[in-house]
Amino acid sequence: MKAEIICVGTELLLGDVVNTNAAYIAQQLAHNGIFCYHQSVIGDNPERLKTSFNSALTRSDLIILTGGLGPTYDDLTKEIIADSLGLSLELHQPSMDRIEAYFKTTGKPMTENNIKQAMVPNNAIVFDNHCGTAPGIGIEMDDKTIILLPGPPREMRMMFETSINDYLLNKTDIALISHKLYLFGIGESAVEALLKDKMIDYQNPTIAPYAMQGSVMLRITATAETSEKAEALIKPVIKDIEQLFEPYIYGVDIENLEQVVVDALKQKKCTVATAESCTGGMVSSRITGVSGSSKVFELGVTTYSNEQKIKILDVPSHLFTTVGAVSEEVAAAMAIGVRTLAQADIGIGITGIAGPTGGTDMKPVGLVYIGIATSSGVDVRELKLGRGLANERSQIQQNATNHALKMILDELK
Amino acid sequence: MKAEIICVGTELLLGDVVNTNAAYIAQQLAHNGIFCYHQSVIGDNPERLKTSFNSALTRSDLIILTGGLGPTYDDLTKEIIADSLGLSLELHQPSMDRIEAYFKTTGKPMTENNIKQAMVPNNAIVFDNHCGTAPGIGIEMDDKTIILLPGPPREMRMMFETSINDYLLNKTDIALISHKLYLFGIGESAVEALLKDKMIDYQNPTIAPYAMQGSVMLRITATAETSEKAEALIKPVIKDIEQLFEPYIYGVDIENLEQVVVDALKQKKCTVATAESCTGGMVSSRITGVSGSSKVFELGVTTYSNEQKIKILDVPSHLFTTVGAVSEEVAAAMAIGVRTLAQADIGIGITGIAGPTGGTDMKPVGLVYIGIATSSGVDVRELKLGRGLANERSQIQQNATNHALKMILDELK
Repeated sequence: MKAEIICVGTELLLGDVVNTNAAYIAQQLAHNGIFCYHQSVIGDNPERLKTSFNSALTRSDLIILTGGLGPTYDDLTKEIIADSLGLSLELHQPSMDRIEAYFKTTGKPMTENNIKQAMVPNNAIVFDNHCGTAPGIGIEMDDKTIILLPGPPREMRMMFETSINDYLLNKTDIALISHKLYLFGIGESAVEALLKDKMIDYQNPTIAPYAMQGSVMLRITATAETSEKAEALIKPVIKDIEQLFEPYIYGVDIENLEQVVVDALKQKKCTVATAESCTGGMVSSRITGVSGSSKVFELGVTTYSNEQKIKILDVPSHLFTTVGAVSEEVAAAMAIGVRTLAQADIGIGITGIAGPTGGTDMKPVGLVYIGIATSSGVDVRELKLGRGLANERSQIQQNATNHALKMILDELK
Repeated sequence: MKAEIICVGTELLLGDVVNTNAAYIAQQLAHNGIFCYHQSVIGDNPERLKTSFNSALTRSDLIILTGGLGPTYDDLTKEIIADSLGLSLELHQPSMDRIEAYFKTTGKPMTENNIKQAMVPNNAIVFDNHCGTAPGIGIEMDDKTIILLPGPPREMRMMFETSINDYLLNKTDIALISHKLYLFGIGESAVEALLKDKMIDYQNPTIAPYAMQGSVMLRITATAETSEKAEALIKPVIKDIEQLFEPYIYGVDIENLEQVVVDALKQKKCTVATAESCTGGMVSSRITGVSGSSKVFELGVTTYSNEQKIKILDVPSHLFTTVGAVSEEVAAAMAIGVRTLAQADIGIGITGIAGPTGGTDMKPVGLVYIGIATSSGVDVRELKLGRGLANERSQIQQNATNHALKMILDELK
């Protein structure tokens, strides 16, 4: 079964909104063993949408469209698809009732243009929207399946989870399974150089490396008649790769380094406390973004000024005049200070220059010190994360945060 | 001039990576007054790439491709485009020298497969890559312009900023200008209901609302012979809309609420300190993500446990047994506590239940209290951000963070 995705919206075509929907739907299709060969984006333009939809009908069996189901006058996807297929629109009373109920519970006033959202093509399958107004629509005609989904990512994802995956389940007889290994501390070229022979040798499963923000992802994909058979093909390959890249791999099918860190902390019954300067609370925020992190995290402080480092973390004040705020010594003192303050097993201290200003020849933008204090002492790592580029503040902060998280993980091993 | 974007990469087609490149390029084209009517994504598949590229040649004047210029054996974009156009590849010595120098400065070992990246089609224009290895390539043939760009977003963006925008400057004679107004605290339907007549009346500029994560964006777009004339068309419309939505608008062409907050704090010479529980440092992290925030932000604390709230912020311990940690009283005490501790002008205290566990009938997931303390006292807002959905922890944290930032902004007005 060949699938394709058409995302409708001038906001996507003008680049005002990043197309996360296409990525999400593509992943869901892959999980369902459905191959997707085309993704495209069309503006809120009736003629071009009609042309694109008709091309898709000639080459694909399943066409998923998102967007243009909203209440506003330029939301036209449903109308154009129905027209292209010669279908008329009729009021779907259960959807109308649900939309009215939705406005009652949220307390927002329902405006007249919301009625348009309860109109569906005749004989269509209706997928309930559990967190918005526009229902999803399924149309089956001449061996083709067309699915229309709302554009807001939350509504679209919820609909996929509650209805669309079940609907797709019986539409394919090939299973496509992917597993992903996440590596930190090694570049894509180096990974590829080590893997090149294997990448060419392996046809099923295939191996492909991708450079991510600060990490490398290795995707291993197998196809077979059943999920079980595909899994059996993948298993030995993952083992093989895990041996090759052991010190770098931090997650299998878990991209979030912080999730891996929180899991490891829980397993070792360890707590961590953070003292951040240049990362400004990002480590704390990443860790507490993980559900259940309260078991391993009690305290984080963002001490942006020297005064606060002295007052709250007991960093010796003479360090600021001798070695300076961005130094091995201050990182160590921050780590020790917050570990003591929170009575945690592990203390992290981060100081550095996130830029774009504040750098000097001796201490350039991107120089970061990360201290890690435990019962057996304190260890500090020096990082040079700057590359002299514009607008890299956020990248330096994220990169330093990733290093801090990886240091916690390595400490727990 | 009609443009289109083709992004090459199986990682995009499988949804492993979100296509931020298409959005970025589309924005840049719009700024250059170039209309983009199609975006598509193709896997690392020679046949389908060739077919897609040939279709693009029939309907577009400018085709921008990203991805597939890397060193790995499945990076084939350059080879396929050269082959489609009947061009051969030759070594571009300056690029080879640059790649060698790049590896020397980063200290990473250069692997042999990087040589492939210095090969370019004969007579091509070469765009230097200032933060990676693969150069960009421009090809002009039979009134068509083809641009090949590297896939990693940082490299592609840097190349656009340093070379591609200048290259595109002389390729068009229509200016397309967009301005964006960002609103917080009002839904898309309500915006549209208030704007409907204007949206239909206005043809140039056009007005379009989009629901963003937690906010609404209104895009106003005008076309004219020059940028100045387009700006003159937009100006009165923005004034009109600003009057209509005054309490909700927080930014014009600045999406980042935290940037607006830091600018306002600087202007009023005010400092802020944060005490966070359920948002776990996200407010601190968002504020310190803004360059120059050290002028207005000295201290943030993430007190995740009751003990830390008592010890560090002086929250009266009896509150935890009487009204509980998630209460108006604790939010107020946290705001006052951190304001005193940091000697800041404004103190923010946030306590709530981010979920997915920890909710009760009386205090459900999504219940959040935000306190704001100033010299004139303390004010607390109660928010109900939960909708009973799965996986909404991150959304509740982000939403609470946005509310806290908006409260700081409103306080400064």
